[in-house]
Amino acid sequence: MKIEVVQKVLKHNEQAARDNRTRLDAAGICCVNILGGAGCGKTSLLEALVPRLRERFRIAVLEGDLETTRDAERIAALNTPVVQLLTGGGCHLNATQVQEGLNRLPLGELDLIFIENVGNPICPAGFDLGEHLRLAVLSVAEGHDKLAKYPPLFRDADAVVLSKCDLLELADFDPGVLEQDLGRLNPRAPLFRTSVRSGEGFAELAGWVTQRVGCGGERPADSRRRRG
Amino acid sequence: MKIEVVQKVLKHNEQAARDNRTRLDAAGICCVNILGGAGCGKTSLLEALVPRLRERFRIAVLEGDLETTRDAERIAALNTPVVQLLTGGGCHLNATQVQEGLNRLPLGELDLIFIENVGNPICPAGFDLGEHLRLAVLSVAEGHDKLAKYPPLFRDADAVVLSKCDLLELADFDPGVLEQDLGRLNPRAPLFRTSVRSGEGFAELAGWVTQRVGCGGERPADSRRRRG
Repeated sequence: MKIEVVQKVLKHNEQAARDNRTRLDAAGICCVNILGGAGCGKTSLLEALVPRLRERFRIAVLEGDLETTRDAERIAALNTPVVQLLTGGGCHLNATQVQEGLNRLPLGELDLIFIENVGNPICPAGFDLGEHLRLAVLSVAEGHDKLAKYPPLFRDADAVVLSKCDLLELADFDPGVLEQDLGRLNPRAPLFRTSVRSGEGFAELAGWVTQRVGCGGERPADSRRRRG
Repeated sequence: MKIEVVQKVLKHNEQAARDNRTRLDAAGICCVNILGGAGCGKTSLLEALVPRLRERFRIAVLEGDLETTRDAERIAALNTPVVQLLTGGGCHLNATQVQEGLNRLPLGELDLIFIENVGNPICPAGFDLGEHLRLAVLSVAEGHDKLAKYPPLFRDADAVVLSKCDLLELADFDPGVLEQDLGRLNPRAPLFRTSVRSGEGFAELAGWVTQRVGCGGERPADSRRRRG
């Protein structure tokens, strides 16, 4: 028996991603795709970041998960519009799923959309969703060797977040190794050290996002467009 | 343009997995597949477990990674035969890669092979490698909601390891939630709480593995065979 895959999955995704980006640009919305392994702290990052940004921007969130609406419930508790995208076992979000998410949001009333991708350090990196910026998250608990071991996640990121920095003194984590690997892999990406416990790093991260959201008509999409 | 996928990828993997299992059985080897997200502590678990088992069993390790030989170097430092399987970006090991790994090991001189899968809580769960037992690892730092959010990893495990338990007092981790989700998802799987810092749980885990390795000709493959 022969299985024929008629759809060109990746080509199809690229087209859907382009469509999403065109649509977001037309609405003047900046879209940030947050990627990282399971439990690296993506939802907690949003819980800390959204309150710091919403006085300035009208924000919504697309939550990608295999199952459950637990993350969406956490975002809804922030009184932020959220759409849960369930992949039903799929290991990453694709641009068509994001398109469906955008259909459910009042795009004319938004400035900034965060997409929380499925918790997986590998597959999500291969799928453009139409976002303008990529944030790659790594927690201190995962270990300092992860940039070298999972390069695609970090190579294409516009910024890298080292989360759970309150664990730095407890974990065998050498920030020097991380910085060296990042310098080699993706020297233009800034590194933000954060802790939701202490609040460390979120003012800086919010500042970085703010700089990139709709500054006088100049869209923040340049870097991603070049890659697209 | 139409892409034709001639190989039935999953069927092909199933056959290769069956071949691996037959070959391991013929050699009297028990094979344990260790799965879990990036940085959950799979290599550290092996570093703690192998020394506790090697007086009794002749052990080798297959190390799955996207890139680098860092994990294999850590296992080699234990004076244990190890083969690094690089997926070159692939998000899980498949049975053919394991077959190639087995080709490089002296099967006649082994009792126990550990496979450390690629650090990914999703895709590896879908691929039988020919193993007899599956160990699913979750670290305290990842959060207590991960069984509900990544059910395939835990549903099919023969045992679950909660690693980095030295962080339990620091993390917002409710072991009750984990136990409840495990009871619902996979009630027959025992839960081992471990910490490489304190050594907690490794005697129990080593005991569990020992019980399952070649007890008087009765192979430990039953549960996996039923699933295969």
